[in-house]
Amino acid sequence: MGRALKAAIASDVARIEQAMEDDLALSAAETDPLLAEILRYGLLQGGKRIRPLLMVLCYRLCGGGKGEGEGETGVDIHRLAIAFEYLHGATLFHDDVIDRGLVRRGRPSVHVAYGETAAILAGDFLHARAMLLIGRGGGIPALDIFCQATTALVDGEFMQLHNARNYNLSEEDYFRVIMDKTARLIGAACQIGALVAGAGAGEQEALRDYGLCLGSAFQIIDDLLDYQGDEAATGKVVGNDFCEGKMTLPLILAVRRAEEQDRQRLLAMLANPEERKDGVAQARDLIARADGFAQARHKAEGMIADGLARLRSVGQARSRPELGILEALAGYVLSREK
Amino acid sequence: MGRALKAAIASDVARIEQAMEDDLALSAAETDPLLAEILRYGLLQGGKRIRPLLMVLCYRLCGGGKGEGEGETGVDIHRLAIAFEYLHGATLFHDDVIDRGLVRRGRPSVHVAYGETAAILAGDFLHARAMLLIGRGGGIPALDIFCQATTALVDGEFMQLHNARNYNLSEEDYFRVIMDKTARLIGAACQIGALVAGAGAGEQEALRDYGLCLGSAFQIIDDLLDYQGDEAATGKVVGNDFCEGKMTLPLILAVRRAEEQDRQRLLAMLANPEERKDGVAQARDLIARADGFAQARHKAEGMIADGLARLRSVGQARSRPELGILEALAGYVLSREK
Repeated sequence: MGRALKAAIASDVARIEQAMEDDLALSAAETDPLLAEILRYGLLQGGKRIRPLLMVLCYRLCGGGKGEGEGETGVDIHRLAIAFEYLHGATLFHDDVIDRGLVRRGRPSVHVAYGETAAILAGDFLHARAMLLIGRGGGIPALDIFCQATTALVDGEFMQLHNARNYNLSEEDYFRVIMDKTARLIGAACQIGALVAGAGAGEQEALRDYGLCLGSAFQIIDDLLDYQGDEAATGKVVGNDFCEGKMTLPLILAVRRAEEQDRQRLLAMLANPEERKDGVAQARDLIARADGFAQARHKAEGMIADGLARLRSVGQARSRPELGILEALAGYVLSREK
Repeated sequence: MGRALKAAIASDVARIEQAMEDDLALSAAETDPLLAEILRYGLLQGGKRIRPLLMVLCYRLCGGGKGEGEGETGVDIHRLAIAFEYLHGATLFHDDVIDRGLVRRGRPSVHVAYGETAAILAGDFLHARAMLLIGRGGGIPALDIFCQATTALVDGEFMQLHNARNYNLSEEDYFRVIMDKTARLIGAACQIGALVAGAGAGEQEALRDYGLCLGSAFQIIDDLLDYQGDEAATGKVVGNDFCEGKMTLPLILAVRRAEEQDRQRLLAMLANPEERKDGVAQARDLIARADGFAQARHKAEGMIADGLARLRSVGQARSRPELGILEALAGYVLSREK
């Protein structure tokens, strides 16, 4: 992330962190000390805070919280925004149990550090706490959007289960999964920000679409980084998706576009776990030769362009400084290296 | 359950089942078919529907839904009530993963039938769906009560983790756990029923207390049935709690009250997993000799008496037929054999 963008969001990120600290301290006073410790461990170390940040920025873009304090509209927007970090955290806790993910944000994941039981339960706690914060701060319409994004998330996980070992997965199936698993929650963050600021349906939908585009592009870049990233920067093992036989966009495009011989080679490797493990470098060459990486990036760029158009349809009429920051965040999604 | 009580609740139970069928069909139209199947498997086979039923009855006791339809107050109370069955279901799905529970309601539990991943995810789905139903139908005050009961539930699970292998557990610790793990959600069902009917804080609290007493007594009877139940009726293996070294009320009371020699014998058995497994019959004798079963039952009876007093403080002024049913349900908690 560029220095200018970092500076522009620093104060909001700090306030989101503080709101989370405060809320966790509040919970800690009422809950079991081990649970409190797990929540701090799982939530407070690292994390980009993208979702709550988008919510806060969309809120202000739509005229919420004029001036410095949030007192004017009666909404503590940073406190409300942490609901998205809580839900995201709950998802990570449970996903790491499900996928046997051992490392998260450079440290042992919650179930490794505290056990599976604790990870499942702490996720459930965060779920309920997130819903409570959203309902209290955003009312029933916000709760509605939030819960529907949550159920969609689960639905996306189930679709992904079905898609496992389908090495001829279509682009449509891929996009359906990332829409439900990643994009909808980011869209919901943007939409609820607008809603709480009192924006009308048209602006809410435009910002939701901006979030959906951002979220989808974010996931595509994630998939690219899995093949092309710098392990030191991402903290993840390169080629992990291929090793697991996970059909992400570069690979899907390569299987569709490659010369027949390359295509057969890719499919043969995919069908054999041992070959997958040893074949990451070769797979990368085959995907590159079929233009899978460039085409995937191209699609992400197209989405960001669509998202920016939707953002500007709101932002130009509102003419607030958040427009520039939200534009820069869209650019960051494409340029990020971790 | 006696025939008269069964008849009195039959129509509400049927309407709760129907509301659940309808809502699941609605979700099924939007979700992955496997998820829809799991939800039906986990929710629609068996289950006493005690929580939603209590909510509906407390609602009507407080003047909600006069006459047959619920149209007068604008609340579809049966639809709202299924949120409690959903949350309860989510808890069972996750608990069975955590405790490696293989059988539930006489059939393979969800994680056995569909895998751990599916059980965790389906529980998350139900969580979100439950919050949505409660928020939509009951507003933010209802959501508040519901979410706090949910976080308490997790908190109770963590307390229980800490208490594991503490064979000198105090009665207070035991009651703290069952309050959070079982009673609060039942109290919340009663309270939200009153709230949605428009009852004041005094009546809401009285019915919440009735629910708390009922829930605590329910759990104590559960603990007694674990030692004294008929396997054919309960569908559970007798002595399971003792085998697992789980400190429930009869055993806690026995450890406190037994003659020194018996006490040492019990503690020695508890400390050794092999001895626990082979020693259920002996443990039962030792607990009986220390009057653990009778004393535990006595406490459950005291709670039911307290609960009935709180119920009547509302019900006698309201003089509606639900009073008799709620009294009978309290009686059923004590007399139930499964």
